Amino acid sequence: MKARVDVVLKNGVLDPQGKAINQALHHLGFNQVQDVRQGKLIEIELNETNKDTAMASLKQMAEKLLTNQVIENYKITFQD
Amino acid sequence: MKARVDVVLKNGVLDPQGKAINQALHHLGFNQVQDVRQGKLIEIELNETNKDTAMASLKQMAEKLLTNQVIENYKITFQD
Repeated sequence: MKARVDVVLKNGVLDPQGKAINQALHHLGFNQVQDVRQGKLIEIELNETNKDTAMASLKQMAEKLLTNQVIENYKITFQD
Repeated sequence: MKARVDVVLKNGVLDPQGKAINQALHHLGFNQVQDVRQGKLIEIELNETNKDTAMASLKQMAEKLLTNQVIENYKITFQD
């Protein structure tokens, strides 16, 4: 089973990487860009057939290792 | 209009960050994890109403700045 954990900064948390991308896009002439936020995506291949069990483990992984819950939100989705 | 560019390493490209996460998850007891790949997600807020124009600009942004096409693939999606 293949899953994906999307990790994005919470609203209000400063995102210097996103800001740098935004500025670089403007320098390249993409003036229609208003805001950019950068996050991480983590693709995990699991040896697990039960979706509920997989979801429970993935939540634990996200909270124990993959995200910093003070400043980040996460979303878990399954692929096909 | 809000769009998202997902950037992932091409198959076969070594991913040391993904490997590190994989090992850390095993140390935490998540032995069902088989493989981990890490990528970037970039959320872009665009001042643009036409989806086709937006898609064309986003492709240019992805190819000029956001990705290294030698080692990375990208996927553009629109949000809501």
